[in-house]
Amino acid sequence: MEDKIKGISEKIIKLLEEKKIQEVKEIIFDLYPTEFVEVTHYLPLEQTVEIFKLIKDDEKIAELLSELNSELQANIMDALGKEKASDILEEMDTDEAADFLGEITPRESRELLDLMPKEEAKEIEELLKYKENTAGSIMNNEFVALPEDLTAEEAINKIRELSPEAEMIYYIYIVDKREKLIGVISLRDLIMANPKAKISKIVEEDVVSVLDTEDQETAARIIADYDFLAIPVINRNGTLLGIITVDDIIDVLQEEVTEDIHKMVGSSEVYEDKLIKASPLTRAKARLSWLFVCMAGGVLAGSVIKFYSDILQSVVALAFFIPVIIDMGGNVGTQSSTITVRALATGQLRTDELARNIWAETKVGLLIGLIVGIALSVVALIWQNNFLLGIVIGLSLCITLVVAAAIGTLLPLIFTKIKVDPAIASGPLITTIIDMGGLFIYFSIGSLIFKYFG
Amino acid sequence: MEDKIKGISEKIIKLLEEKKIQEVKEIIFDLYPTEFVEVTHYLPLEQTVEIFKLIKDDEKIAELLSELNSELQANIMDALGKEKASDILEEMDTDEAADFLGEITPRESRELLDLMPKEEAKEIEELLKYKENTAGSIMNNEFVALPEDLTAEEAINKIRELSPEAEMIYYIYIVDKREKLIGVISLRDLIMANPKAKISKIVEEDVVSVLDTEDQETAARIIADYDFLAIPVINRNGTLLGIITVDDIIDVLQEEVTEDIHKMVGSSEVYEDKLIKASPLTRAKARLSWLFVCMAGGVLAGSVIKFYSDILQSVVALAFFIPVIIDMGGNVGTQSSTITVRALATGQLRTDELARNIWAETKVGLLIGLIVGIALSVVALIWQNNFLLGIVIGLSLCITLVVAAAIGTLLPLIFTKIKVDPAIASGPLITTIIDMGGLFIYFSIGSLIFKYFG
Repeated sequence: MEDKIKGISEKIIKLLEEKKIQEVKEIIFDLYPTEFVEVTHYLPLEQTVEIFKLIKDDEKIAELLSELNSELQANIMDALGKEKASDILEEMDTDEAADFLGEITPRESRELLDLMPKEEAKEIEELLKYKENTAGSIMNNEFVALPEDLTAEEAINKIRELSPEAEMIYYIYIVDKREKLIGVISLRDLIMANPKAKISKIVEEDVVSVLDTEDQETAARIIADYDFLAIPVINRNGTLLGIITVDDIIDVLQEEVTEDIHKMVGSSEVYEDKLIKASPLTRAKARLSWLFVCMAGGVLAGSVIKFYSDILQSVVALAFFIPVIIDMGGNVGTQSSTITVRALATGQLRTDELARNIWAETKVGLLIGLIVGIALSVVALIWQNNFLLGIVIGLSLCITLVVAAAIGTLLPLIFTKIKVDPAIASGPLITTIIDMGGLFIYFSIGSLIFKYFG
Repeated sequence: MEDKIKGISEKIIKLLEEKKIQEVKEIIFDLYPTEFVEVTHYLPLEQTVEIFKLIKDDEKIAELLSELNSELQANIMDALGKEKASDILEEMDTDEAADFLGEITPRESRELLDLMPKEEAKEIEELLKYKENTAGSIMNNEFVALPEDLTAEEAINKIRELSPEAEMIYYIYIVDKREKLIGVISLRDLIMANPKAKISKIVEEDVVSVLDTEDQETAARIIADYDFLAIPVINRNGTLLGIITVDDIIDVLQEEVTEDIHKMVGSSEVYEDKLIKASPLTRAKARLSWLFVCMAGGVLAGSVIKFYSDILQSVVALAFFIPVIIDMGGNVGTQSSTITVRALATGQLRTDELARNIWAETKVGLLIGLIVGIALSVVALIWQNNFLLGIVIGLSLCITLVVAAAIGTLLPLIFTKIKVDPAIASGPLITTIIDMGGLFIYFSIGSLIFKYFG
């Protein structure tokens, strides 16, 4: 794939230099939009702009442009001029046009909207009002809505008429006179039906929909669970506003996961998809707040060691096992919290199963603790040739891991209950608590045992 | 949602006790399959089985059964008896029937297949041959394939005939006499076309397909990138074997992510979706191997401390900052590796951008290191009232973080180059290397400074 794309890019660059316009156009029209995006990665900006100037068909431009990142979009639109840009916006799906306008300055956005036909401009403006990550912000209006008094045949004819405008014709939404959503029919059922049958007879009235103000993740989860190709978006009055299609949902699901993963390691939301290529300063900023929390945690853990500096002074070997206690406790805690966060996110775990799950995970911690604890005490015994130290380290590791597993499971569940995102809140807190707890357990057992048996 | 489902479950339980069979059936038929699954979570096994015995329609049973987990499926099939079970298998999508047969014993699977019509049994057996996670293992044969010499009208009539059998009729695949895939038409284009037009005129001949032996992730990535509703699966001869639909792909993408996340924290593949509810022993086993590697890493890090036990003995306060060095180094390393692994997985980062990325991330590490290093040296100075210690800790933290960022970026890239899964391989190795490196930097700077200035 990569080689094929590289080859095409080189060919385009050569053809552009030789002014073989027609051939370039043919290549571009043969590419899938996603392949075109790949090609642009290998082209200098000027050549990408040149290609867009070659294409006369606004619809094709809109299709290709929709796939590019917002920076490149802005550059191209700029080069094409305002008149052309507003024509292209008209051809774009409303959700994508709104995305683009949301990324440029409000003044530029206003100028482009003013150049568009009033009705289309209004539709896009409606979308621009929605907060990021709501269902409304990712819906589009390329759907087919029909009244229920048609026959199947009439409906199919209607769809033929409307199809050039509609992104999605496989679900047909049935609305009443006031545009309230009252049902849905699949194109499949429509084709299968007797052409003379009224669609009111075959309509599915129990439509699953989302509110425009709901989180986009809700829409994603429903589409994923119900295996839908699209879901209608309504307002509080039940009016059909738009649809969200399965391909948009795939993007949402992937974004959410990337976000969750980054939150878990504290590189926050600033690290969004395109920002992997951001400046070092932006990247550093996105990670700093979490690292300061982590630093505070480390200092607190250090103060536990300071509290026990007497015993450490007399048994320096105790220091050799600080890394094992911290690493193992942190790992078991992170494992438990990751498993819990993920199970909550995919809906495998309900918050009302709280107590049962903490208990189950604590048992896992105990099992792991026993096995690893015994192993480490043997290692300590052989390495340091000190029987007491072996007992101390094995026992405290075992207890630490039980605590780590329990806390790692408990915290994400608590955060979810109090409606704080468990992915972002768990990480630093879990590390700090487990570090302090582990070292406290280790050194207090150490003091006790060496005091009475040492 | 949860409350609604709970209510329905309680109602069903009550109705079943009162033997109000008809009402139970009505409720079940009104539910979406995914809602039915939720309901079964609240029902005792016997009642779930009872419901399946009530439903006479094999197709409905097949639809509901497909959504349940394999354990529950096996229990229900068992209760329904072999004859009935084979009838239901016939009605299931081939991919789901194969999934089910793959989970029970080979002997039971054989018995059920023998009870089925030869042709259908053969189709399922073909699927059973595929290795897990290949495109072939998740494809189904519920597609429409037509010869290219039909007119649009004839094609639509054909689809009407075939539709009850086909899961997916929105893409129609065009094959030659030897069933080689030669093109695809969307139902949309077919409806839009002149009814008398030959479909050979409107067919898209540049079909994107996957090989049956390719990784299912390849199919997932293509569907996600191209916004397809389905992708055809062919063998090396170009024969059309089946299709993979977008809803299957959503499942694949979610599974892969869960797998990757679990690999990163070392809770391995055993922790698959359903296993969140596995026994403590299974759960402990899935995590142990990684913890032993981690333990070895901790002991190695400890041996660095042991190597410097002289200086530690004379400046015990050095021990107080061991947690900060380990935690911060580990965090920055994990952040860098997570960002890299995720960017590789989503295709935002190509391996040929290696050098540039390590350099970029190293700069991020330096920036973070400078800021956090200065902050921590001030903390150390105030806390310990020891100027030299402040210098030591600040300087070594800064260097450690640079190294951590570089290693965290480098390792996943190297693993990808040598075709080892970066998600599973990076974690423990990165922690160990950074722990050792960080402590070595810390203590060697500490020895030097305290030796010459102390």
